[in-house]
Formats: sequence, C-alpha cells, structure tokens
Amino acid sequence: MPAIPLSLAKRASVEFAGASVLLMAIVGSGIMGERLAGGNDAIALLANSIATGAVLVALLLAFGEVSGAHFNPLVTLSGAFRQKFPWRETPAYIGAQVVGAFSGVALANVMFGLPVILTSHHVRTGWTQWIAEAVATAGLLTVIACSVRWRPSATPFAVAGYVTAAYWFFPSTSFANPAVTLSRSITDTFSGIRPTDVPAFLVAQCAGALAATAFLGWILNDE
Amino acid sequence: MPAIPLSLAKRASVEFAGASVLLMAIVGSGIMGERLAGGNDAIALLANSIATGAVLVALLLAFGEVSGAHFNPLVTLSGAFRQKFPWRETPAYIGAQVVGAFSGVALANVMFGLPVILTSHHVRTGWTQWIAEAVATAGLLTVIACSVRWRPSATPFAVAGYVTAAYWFFPSTSFANPAVTLSRSITDTFSGIRPTDVPAFLVAQCAGALAATAFLGWILNDE
Amino acid sequence: MPAIPLSLAKRASVEFAGASVLLMAIVGSGIMGERLAGGNDAIALLANSIATGAVLVALLLAFGEVSGAHFNPLVTLSGAFRQKFPWRETPAYIGAQVVGAFSGVALANVMFGLPVILTSHHVRTGWTQWIAEAVATAGLLTVIACSVRWRPSATPFAVAGYVTAAYWFFPSTSFANPAVTLSRSITDTFSGIRPTDVPAFLVAQCAGALAATAFLGWILNDE
Amino acid sequence: MPAIPLSLAKRASVEFAGASVLLMAIVGSGIMGERLAGGNDAIALLANSIATGAVLVALLLAFGEVSGAHFNPLVTLSGAFRQKFPWRETPAYIGAQVVGAFSGVALANVMFGLPVILTSHHVRTGWTQWIAEAVATAGLLTVIACSVRWRPSATPFAVAGYVTAAYWFFPSTSFANPAVTLSRSITDTFSGIRPTDVPAFLVAQCAGALAATAFLGWILNDE
Repeated sequence: MPAIPLSLAKRASVEFAGASVLLMAIVGSGIMGERLAGGNDAIALLANSIATGAVLVALLLAFGEVSGAHFNPLVTLSGAFRQKFPWRETPAYIGAQVVGAFSGVALANVMFGLPVILTSHHVRTGWTQWIAEAVATAGLLTVIACSVRWRPSATPFAVAGYVTAAYWFFPSTSFANPAVTLSRSITDTFSGIRPTDVPAFLVAQCAGALAATAFLGWILNDE
Repeated sequence: MPAIPLSLAKRASVEFAGASVLLMAIVGSGIMGERLAGGNDAIALLANSIATGAVLVALLLAFGEVSGAHFNPLVTLSGAFRQKFPWRETPAYIGAQVVGAFSGVALANVMFGLPVILTSHHVRTGWTQWIAEAVATAGLLTVIACSVRWRPSATPFAVAGYVTAAYWFFPSTSFANPAVTLSRSITDTFSGIRPTDVPAFLVAQCAGALAATAFLGWILNDE
Repeated sequence: MPAIPLSLAKRASVEFAGASVLLMAIVGSGIMGERLAGGNDAIALLANSIATGAVLVALLLAFGEVSGAHFNPLVTLSGAFRQKFPWRETPAYIGAQVVGAFSGVALANVMFGLPVILTSHHVRTGWTQWIAEAVATAGLLTVIACSVRWRPSATPFAVAGYVTAAYWFFPSTSFANPAVTLSRSITDTFSGIRPTDVPAFLVAQCAGALAATAFLGWILNDE
Repeated sequence: MPAIPLSLAKRASVEFAGASVLLMAIVGSGIMGERLAGGNDAIALLANSIATGAVLVALLLAFGEVSGAHFNPLVTLSGAFRQKFPWRETPAYIGAQVVGAFSGVALANVMFGLPVILTSHHVRTGWTQWIAEAVATAGLLTVIACSVRWRPSATPFAVAGYVTAAYWFFPSTSFANPAVTLSRSITDTFSGIRPTDVPAFLVAQCAGALAATAFLGWILNDE
C-alpha cells in the first residue's frame, strides 16, 4: 500500500466507485453470459471470469495509487491487523465498499431490465463450498499482500489472474469478499446467492482471512 | 499524456491509423465471430471482446507515446477541458479519429466480401441502453485519466481491460466513443447500430463524459 | 533467481503453498470445465488452460521474490546444474513441491465432492505423447531461464503464456513437471493421468530437461 | 532492437528455435482446437488465437534480448531497410526462421499422429484475402517498430495483442509472415494453406511491408 496523499473523502469515493463497477461487471457479465450462451454454463462462466479479471486490471491500475484499491473489507481489515492501514479509516473504507457494491448490483439489474432489487434463489451451501470460500479468501489475501510487498506495480495483474482462475477451481466460484457476497444476494441471476446462504459464506471468508493474516505475519516479517 | 515531440501531421496520421485499425478489429471480429459461432452469440461476443481488448493493447503500446493514442473524440475533449491537451489541436484529432473510424469499418466490410457501406439494421435503443452508454463512457474516461495520472506506462492494459469487460456488463456492449458509434452505423453486421439510434447514444456518451470530467477535476486536483 | 533473503523454512513453505494452489487450479478447473461444458472438450480445455495461466501469473508475481517460485523439481534441478541454485537446498524444495502438489489435488477432489484420492483411469501413453513431454519440458525450462536472465520482472508473464499455449499444442496437454505428473495420478477427472503412464512421462520430462540444460549452458554462457 | 552481444550462431539458433515453437503452437493448437471443438470453428479459432498470442508473449520475453526475436523475414528485412539491423546478417536470420518454421510444422504433424509432411488442401485465395494480408502485414510491422521505438520492454505484449486480434478481423486469419506462410503449406489441418495459394500471399505481404516501411520512415524519423 503506497504513500496515500489524497483526502479520506476522495479515497472513500474511489472505493465506492471501484466496488460499484466491480459488482456491475460481475453481475452484468453473468447476466449477459447466461442470456447469450444458449444453456452452456461453461461459456457463460468463461465470459463471467474473463470480464471480472479484465475489469480488475482496469480498476486496480486506475485506482491502486489513489485508495489502494481494496474494494474488499477483508483486505482493509487484514491490512489494519498487519499495521499497513490505519484502523481509524476502516469504517469509511468498509462502508464505501459495501454501499458501492450494492449500488453496482442494483445498477446492473436496472441496465438489464430487471427490478432494482430481486432476492436471489441461487443455492450456494454445504461444507465443500465453505471450505472453498475459506481457502479462496486465504489465497486472495496472500497473493495481494505478497505482491504488494515484492512486486507492487504488478499487483493488479496478480489479483486479476487469481480471481479469473478462482472462478474455475473453487466450487463456489470464489466470492472471497464480504461486500461482494452481501450485494450478490439482491440479484436473482447467474451470479446471485440466496440470502440465507450468505452468513456461512461470511464466516468461512473470515476464517480464511484469519489464517492468511497469521501466515503473512510469519512470511512477511523479515525485517 | 506524455511529452509529445512529433508534428501535428504525424500525430493526426497516427490517430487516423489507430482509429481505423480499432474499428477494423471491432467490426471484423464481430463478422468472423458471428459467421463461425454457429448461432451461439456468447462465443461470438467472446471473440469480439477478446479481439478488441487485444488490439487495444497493441495500438496503445505502439502509439501511446506518439499521439497519446486517444482514438476517441471524448478522450480528446475531456483532456482539453482539464487543460491536458491543447484546444487548437482538437479539430485535427477529432477529424482524424472520425475519418479513420469510417475507413476502418469500410475496409472491414470489403475484406469480408460485403458492400463498402451498408446501413445497419441493428436496433440499439431504450433507456437501459442510454444509461449504459452514459455509465460506460464515464467509466472509460475515469480509467484512462487515473491510469495516465498514476500508472502511465500501464495505461494500455487498464484501457484494454476495461473495454474487454465492458462488452459484457453493459447491455449496449459499451460503445463509449462517438467515432466508434458513428462509423458502426455503416455495417449491417454483428457490431452495427441503426443510424436512427446513433444520436441518443451520442447524447448519453456526452452526458457520461461531462460527469466523468467533473469527477476527475475533483479527484485529480490534488496539487 | 533473485537475491533470496528469507529462511529456507519460509521459502519451502511458499513452494508448498504455491504448488498446492497450482494443482488445485489445474485439477479444479478441469473438473468445473468438464462439468459445465456439456461435452464440448474444447470449451473445457479453454477454461482449464486460461485458469492455469491466470493462476500462474498470480503465484509467480506473489512468490517469485520469495522462493523463486519454482513449483517444479526440474526447474530446481536445472538451476542447480547451472549453479544458480544451491544443491543443498534441492531436497527441501523438491519435497515441498511434491507434497504441496499432492495436497492441492486432494483438496480439489474434496472441494468438488469426490474422494480425497481416486486413482486416475485417464490413458496418456505412446511415443507422440512422450515426444511432446520432452519438447514441452525443454521449452518450459528454456523460457524460464532466458526470461529470468534477460527480463526477470516479466518472467511470470512468459511462463504463464507458455503454459497456457502448451495445453493446446502438445497432445499430452503439456505436464512438463514431475510434481504435477505424480500428483495428477490421484484424481480420476479431466486432468488425471493413469499411474502406469506416469513413469514414461517422467523419463521424457527428464530427457527434455537435460537437453534444455545443455542448450542453456551454451546460450547463457556469454560472460 | 536492443544491444545484441551474442554471437550470430547463438542468435540464429534462437531464431530457429523460436520460429519452430511458434509454428508448433499455431499448427498444433489448430489441430487440437478443431479435434475438440465438435464442429464449432469459432471455439477452435478462439483456442488457436489465444494459444498463438500466449506463446508469443513467452517467446518474445524469453528471446527478445537475445536475437531481437524476429521470427519473421519481413521484420528482419524491414529493420535492415531502416538501418536498424545489419544487412550481412539477414541471410542467416531468414534461413534460420524458414527452416525453424518448417521444423515446427513437421514436429506438430508428428506429435498429433499425422505424416511429417502432408500437402495442405486449405484454399486461401482471392482479392479480399490478399488485401487482408497486405494490411495485416503493414499493421504488424508498424506495431513492432513503434513499440520497439517507444515502449521496448512492452513490445512482446503489443505483438501478442496484435496477432491474437488479427486472427479475428482479417478473413485470411492474418499470416503476415513469409516463413509462417511457406511452412503452413505442409500441414493438411485447420491452419494449413494450399501450396498454390502461397505465392500470392507472399506478394501481398511484401506489398504491405513496403508500405509500412515507408510510413515508418516518415513517422520514426524524428531526430
């Protein structure tokens, strides 16, 4: 996380805008992919994963030097735990991320002619999915922290690469982000998640984040 | 936008050539994708979006240091409004972009055995599409300006990532460029747009560009 | 291979974690791709190759400066032969890679609801596959060594590009890595390999590695 | 084209190896794509174009600082005309490229269980294809020369982006390389070309190269 000269208002605005566009991309490309793919879910997921990775490259390159481009409460919190991000700014960041994420999903719904808010019926539950969310979140935080530490200018590509791949090798398609998880409950489309399945996902993600934070404390503590 | 030592004639020629190849790629890959995809529009759009993103990486890396590689009148105008580009050069740039775009579409038509100019019948209208064009244009200009400001050498990847993704999460497939919009009216293929639908797209794009320019004036004005 | 300040325990842990995630990605995306692709193996392989390349970008950027990010016993051994890596550390590295790879395959099996270990019945044998493995391994080691020598910071993209492509132009889909080969024998899915076919693959890979090491000794010996 | 300290023998060997792997990738991924795609040529071309772009990233990053990574006689000749490459070395370079290309096609044939040499029956002829080859070659040389001049370290991504896209927007799928064109006549598969169609392709490519060389002489002559 580089030197950050901008005001908190500007940085929180960028977290809001970034999370909003990220969710627009996740949900919108899911809708478009499913509508066009003629029932072949692999093609829809290919579109979904490529669009998400591509927009992450754009958002992280554009906003990385502005706000750090977290777009994920667990990235913010893990940074605070490892003393890389000030605790006093975490509420503004997390608030902006969550509100931004919901606004992005709502706008995607509207742009594709659906109600602004529509409760998802997409079932995502069970031990295999919870294991997946824990591992996926631990992997994401590890990739972010290590690339920020050793290859900061290439971090956008590391994160985008991880997320694009993670769609495919985690049976949950890898949410790994509480703001993403919460907000995807209000779209009844390809990328939605049933509200009753959200809490367990959040618990699994927090467990993964704790494990990663401990691992990173050991690996990165080399000074 | 880096130091630009070349003559206006050379730079405008590069804007012409770049816009021409960009439109060749958009229209040509749409034709090829649709012809080969056997009716599966998701596969055609995958080809279309990957080809457009890939050619943008090439064009922006090759020509970014020559002309700034705008290829988009709203990028040029937004730069002029924010005093990053001289107003007196905007007519030459915009003229070259528009003429280049039309020449690229015409050449794509010819190369794929179609008449040079063929009025599109592809309907693209309605509030959801106009909202999409406004948001897509605002997002594009924001990504460009922020990455040019903080990560100039990586701007080609930010722009290509954004455009590749935007095909999928905007129901209009994201034109976000008046030169692109105007010229795609003369191809009656996958990526065409009905001439009567063009004016509303241009209005929406300008609205998005204005919003982005205001937002950028606030975010980037940190000195 | 850059200056490596971390302890061997930390570096071997990273080799373990990286090999584990790499195999999760290879095997998991193979399972997900095959399940969703509706019988079209080209779409499944597209998902498989893109996911593998994308996760390699992430892992190599995140861990390249930590452990060198070998994740492959032949990369470690070829480095030792060319005096770029200390022989005394090869057992820890190779052990971590092999155990990590098996753990990744086992976890992928579990996450997708399969038994932890399931013997593969995927036949991969014959002279054409053995030639492919020898050539693929020689190419991989050459790409790694040359990019590490001349373009170290871009090595992750070179390796990911090579591996993504190699899925498609080698009839074996390019294993090119003994840890990958051994561990893929315990998953009876898209990316598995029958245990009886493993030894010949290992021999072919070693032959390719020897050829590459000789070639590299000639090309790189320019001081 | 950076400072080149290696002997001509080493550099020509690298041109041979690079052209060989490039053609293996083009022809091999075409065969694999077609075999797996179940008759959907768009999926086969997606595999073909992604594999070619990905292997180019690898080869150009690995070998760019060794030999310049031309792999294309017209790149070598255009460089010689613009006094960026010594004329006396052009025979060795072009010879290595052509022999390497043929060896790569032959090896791809063998690895996929086909005769070493098999005359192609893939018809590629007519004015639209010849226009495409001229434009595609001019575009390729322009992208290479401009990115080498202004963004040398990013040239591999510019070239790979251009080639990946060009598969889709040129009806010939863009050969743009005499070594590639000649050697693809000996494989009767997806990416083959009928020998009688080769000469016109070569003429068109040379015409495009001449136009590009003249354009580049004007644009790049800014000192």
